Amino acid sequence: MEIGLIGLGRMGYNLALNMRDKGHSVVAYNKTIDRIKEAEKEGIIGAYSIEELVNKLKKRRVIWLMVPAGDVVDEIIDQLIPYLDEHDIIIDGGNSYYKDSIRRYNYLKEKGIDFLDVGTSGGIEGARYGACTMIGGDEEVFKYIKNLFKDISVENGYLYTGKAGSGHFVKMVHNGIEYGMMQAIAEGFEILEKSQFDLDFKEIARVWNNGSVIRGWLMELTEKAFSKDPKLEGIKGVMFSSGEGLWTVQEALSLKIPAPVITDALYMRYRSEMEDTFSGKVVAALRNEFGGHEVVKK
Amino acid sequence: MEIGLIGLGRMGYNLALNMRDKGHSVVAYNKTIDRIKEAEKEGIIGAYSIEELVNKLKKRRVIWLMVPAGDVVDEIIDQLIPYLDEHDIIIDGGNSYYKDSIRRYNYLKEKGIDFLDVGTSGGIEGARYGACTMIGGDEEVFKYIKNLFKDISVENGYLYTGKAGSGHFVKMVHNGIEYGMMQAIAEGFEILEKSQFDLDFKEIARVWNNGSVIRGWLMELTEKAFSKDPKLEGIKGVMFSSGEGLWTVQEALSLKIPAPVITDALYMRYRSEMEDTFSGKVVAALRNEFGGHEVVKK
Amino acid sequence: MEIGLIGLGRMGYNLALNMRDKGHSVVAYNKTIDRIKEAEKEGIIGAYSIEELVNKLKKRRVIWLMVPAGDVVDEIIDQLIPYLDEHDIIIDGGNSYYKDSIRRYNYLKEKGIDFLDVGTSGGIEGARYGACTMIGGDEEVFKYIKNLFKDISVENGYLYTGKAGSGHFVKMVHNGIEYGMMQAIAEGFEILEKSQFDLDFKEIARVWNNGSVIRGWLMELTEKAFSKDPKLEGIKGVMFSSGEGLWTVQEALSLKIPAPVITDALYMRYRSEMEDTFSGKVVAALRNEFGGHEVVKK
Amino acid sequence: MEIGLIGLGRMGYNLALNMRDKGHSVVAYNKTIDRIKEAEKEGIIGAYSIEELVNKLKKRRVIWLMVPAGDVVDEIIDQLIPYLDEHDIIIDGGNSYYKDSIRRYNYLKEKGIDFLDVGTSGGIEGARYGACTMIGGDEEVFKYIKNLFKDISVENGYLYTGKAGSGHFVKMVHNGIEYGMMQAIAEGFEILEKSQFDLDFKEIARVWNNGSVIRGWLMELTEKAFSKDPKLEGIKGVMFSSGEGLWTVQEALSLKIPAPVITDALYMRYRSEMEDTFSGKVVAALRNEFGGHEVVKK
Repeated sequence: MEIGLIGLGRMGYNLALNMRDKGHSVVAYNKTIDRIKEAEKEGIIGAYSIEELVNKLKKRRVIWLMVPAGDVVDEIIDQLIPYLDEHDIIIDGGNSYYKDSIRRYNYLKEKGIDFLDVGTSGGIEGARYGACTMIGGDEEVFKYIKNLFKDISVENGYLYTGKAGSGHFVKMVHNGIEYGMMQAIAEGFEILEKSQFDLDFKEIARVWNNGSVIRGWLMELTEKAFSKDPKLEGIKGVMFSSGEGLWTVQEALSLKIPAPVITDALYMRYRSEMEDTFSGKVVAALRNEFGGHEVVKK
Repeated sequence: MEIGLIGLGRMGYNLALNMRDKGHSVVAYNKTIDRIKEAEKEGIIGAYSIEELVNKLKKRRVIWLMVPAGDVVDEIIDQLIPYLDEHDIIIDGGNSYYKDSIRRYNYLKEKGIDFLDVGTSGGIEGARYGACTMIGGDEEVFKYIKNLFKDISVENGYLYTGKAGSGHFVKMVHNGIEYGMMQAIAEGFEILEKSQFDLDFKEIARVWNNGSVIRGWLMELTEKAFSKDPKLEGIKGVMFSSGEGLWTVQEALSLKIPAPVITDALYMRYRSEMEDTFSGKVVAALRNEFGGHEVVKK
Repeated sequence: MEIGLIGLGRMGYNLALNMRDKGHSVVAYNKTIDRIKEAEKEGIIGAYSIEELVNKLKKRRVIWLMVPAGDVVDEIIDQLIPYLDEHDIIIDGGNSYYKDSIRRYNYLKEKGIDFLDVGTSGGIEGARYGACTMIGGDEEVFKYIKNLFKDISVENGYLYTGKAGSGHFVKMVHNGIEYGMMQAIAEGFEILEKSQFDLDFKEIARVWNNGSVIRGWLMELTEKAFSKDPKLEGIKGVMFSSGEGLWTVQEALSLKIPAPVITDALYMRYRSEMEDTFSGKVVAALRNEFGGHEVVKK
Repeated sequence: MEIGLIGLGRMGYNLALNMRDKGHSVVAYNKTIDRIKEAEKEGIIGAYSIEELVNKLKKRRVIWLMVPAGDVVDEIIDQLIPYLDEHDIIIDGGNSYYKDSIRRYNYLKEKGIDFLDVGTSGGIEGARYGACTMIGGDEEVFKYIKNLFKDISVENGYLYTGKAGSGHFVKMVHNGIEYGMMQAIAEGFEILEKSQFDLDFKEIARVWNNGSVIRGWLMELTEKAFSKDPKLEGIKGVMFSSGEGLWTVQEALSLKIPAPVITDALYMRYRSEMEDTFSGKVVAALRNEFGGHEVVKK
């Protein structure tokens, strides 16, 4: 199959190679030219403008966007529209907010262009050697390119999730769960680390990966991380977040679902980005007021 | 009434003056002599040893301990015992763990000595001008010195809570609630502080103190704190804790009561004492492993 | 002063009486006629349509809306506009979302009509005998009717909080704090209730109200509630919520502020409205899968 | 190797078969005789008393306890002691509290008997076909029976964790992490369930198991559970807990580690066992007091 790919970042680049390995012909465009050149050396067909990319594809075109969530997706869609023909297919494989995907689906529908929202999990390694893909949109469109999803995913690793938005919705919830699971693992290791025992974290992650209830890919990555830096002395515990954890919590709130675990995982990330907190100052000041308790001066 | 007072710290000293103001005769002992000298100038009768303190009191003696929770309470009790007579009364007015108070009650019961566990709230100001006291132990003993509690407390500010341990238990839960309330106030002010509005925190605390649902002493103290330092720029948000919050959470856990608010208030205190977290490192390392996400190097 | 009041619900009705007591002339309109009739007996001037209400007021008109948050506020504003003159003043004294208030301010600004957003705290009793009011909008407008706010509030109980939206914003955060404080109190009393001690909750709330750190109006209400039903046996623990707690949490999330206490207070409310949870089923099913642990069949 | 096994419950029985499959000779005792009879049919040597069990083993005896955590472990140890010889080995393979294991280690040390604390994960299936074992105690003792652990565990699925207590400690933390991970998964599925999309939970668990970041055994079990009951309609969301989650939280608290995720997972379990809460009643009563808000009558 012929695929147009827009965005050669960490995820997009590896996905291009993955598609190529499976025999697909990939025409790729990227904001910065160097990255296109690099891709060309790997057998990817470079396109140096959106127009060129579209022109190099035969109809019914399939164009996969792998760009950061947000306005840039809308901008690229608007740049694409003038060159597209009816029933060409735009796939958003990034981490877009599912409500944006529903909006884009409707917007493109009016223009006769098909749209799929695809949540892609598995990290960089997954993009390269076999991802997990969750696909929302019209079923006919999904079926038309089903084999592409099959090829770039690990065995049994793709799913048509239903109507427009559902692909990114399911991926969003996946990431929310990921936040909770990671924080659970992290709290556990902090308890190990502060305990009276002299434990080898890498070995513990290793044994937990073999036969335990909590075995899984995250624990494998934990083992890998500790094998590189046994006590993680080289890094700071600052936990950034991209948006899907936040969206999951917002969704829980608006559906009135108690989701304390995913929420607290997010809050601990926010807290880790702060040096100090105003709330802490308020409590410290109050303790000082009523009990004369010591405060830490600045 | 004649009262022996052991411990002239912030709380004990002010309590002595409070008792004196109400016409009680206070004999006070303290670990460091300077503080006794100081108290003597205020009309308190100094005692320079436990023995002296006991000897200066007439039977049925009433001895109030105002010392830090922990072993020191047991030590002082053991130092007192040889000099006491049957049905002399020891009052523990500190922040002791209620299970220790039950143990001490039973221990002293066997020796014929009476014991009351008294939770004292209201901070330093309360100790000085009228506290809130929660009293556990035998009712007969409570009744014997009921007027003392009445005198040192604000109007309606004393309560016989029931059998041994209940005074400190009720005080413990009081402090647990206090943790939750303070953190709630603190989170609210942090939202105000980071908002798009240019707000005067002192004025907001002031208006909330007059007619709002959340008016109360903690909000008055908030107002006071902001009136001294309008943006709390002089202090750091490090929130220490003494023990009663922890005990409250442990109690909730063992009674199988969901107490997320009091617990998270405690966790935020713990977090505020840490520069960095091991759990944060684990999450950061994992994000790096699967997504190539940036970590903050040390 | 002459005030038009729209909405004679629990809050509006009592506010009308409060204004009347302070010598203001109140013209009131309400959706249901009975309530207007009732008000007329109390010296309120009834208006049986929006038009009538406006016509009964002299310019520069002051019209106070006391209706539920949401679309109804917009509807009433749109019904008012045709009858209003430049610089007439609409006051939204309800629990509107602050972003709606900013939108309404701008919308009315274009039409030359002034708008204040006023958070009103203190419950029904406050509305009747002295509330706590937080006022956002143009300062000139505030100053024009400053005395009205002074009159209907308790002493020192009104505050001009700044530009449009800030009144409802500050009130929103107030309610968020209220959620956290109430849940903290509630968790504490559940620990008391499940403890080994035989405690009198009403008496404990009473003593905590006199001299303790956690004294305040909420504790007074706790005392009142227990004085009516000593163990709250007549009611179920279903905790409804109106919206301001949710908005506060959403605000914290978007400002990246860890607010676990206010959030968990909200989640516990949501949980209390559910008979059973799907999340619980998932955990129960998983425990059964790996450990053969018993599940509760339906 | 010859092993004495005490306890033929779900875990013990399967472990016996596992040991037998690997060529070990298992002598088993159980409280109820039927279970011994059953085991005998499977090639296990039955013992009808503790004494008989010990007598059927050659020195240096290896006796594996697979009984519920708590006093019963102490009782069996005390029943064993009179029949044992120096350096016989007792293994506690159950879910004992690690501090109990340290105490038992010291107690047996004085009597010349060796003791290992072994955390066993992997559920029933693991016990039968390959578990994950974490072993604490003297290294010499571990080495003496290392092959036994190797045989009953999956490949790379056993670890000597260090001094006495560490095996059960590491297993305890493992379970704490498990609580957090399960609740994260559960919250995610509840968000899916209440969403606007019509999703097939089994298929989603399936796709997440193939290539996603959150793939792992728990997700496989989720898939299995949904394949049996697609919407879990047959069960209630009551989540029991055995003790290791609680111990993990208690450990976090005493080490002053913020562990909100594991803690909230535990609290949600506690909440699920309750029909109603006293805390909910307090909040409902308070809302009624200040705002006249509706309460649900009993």
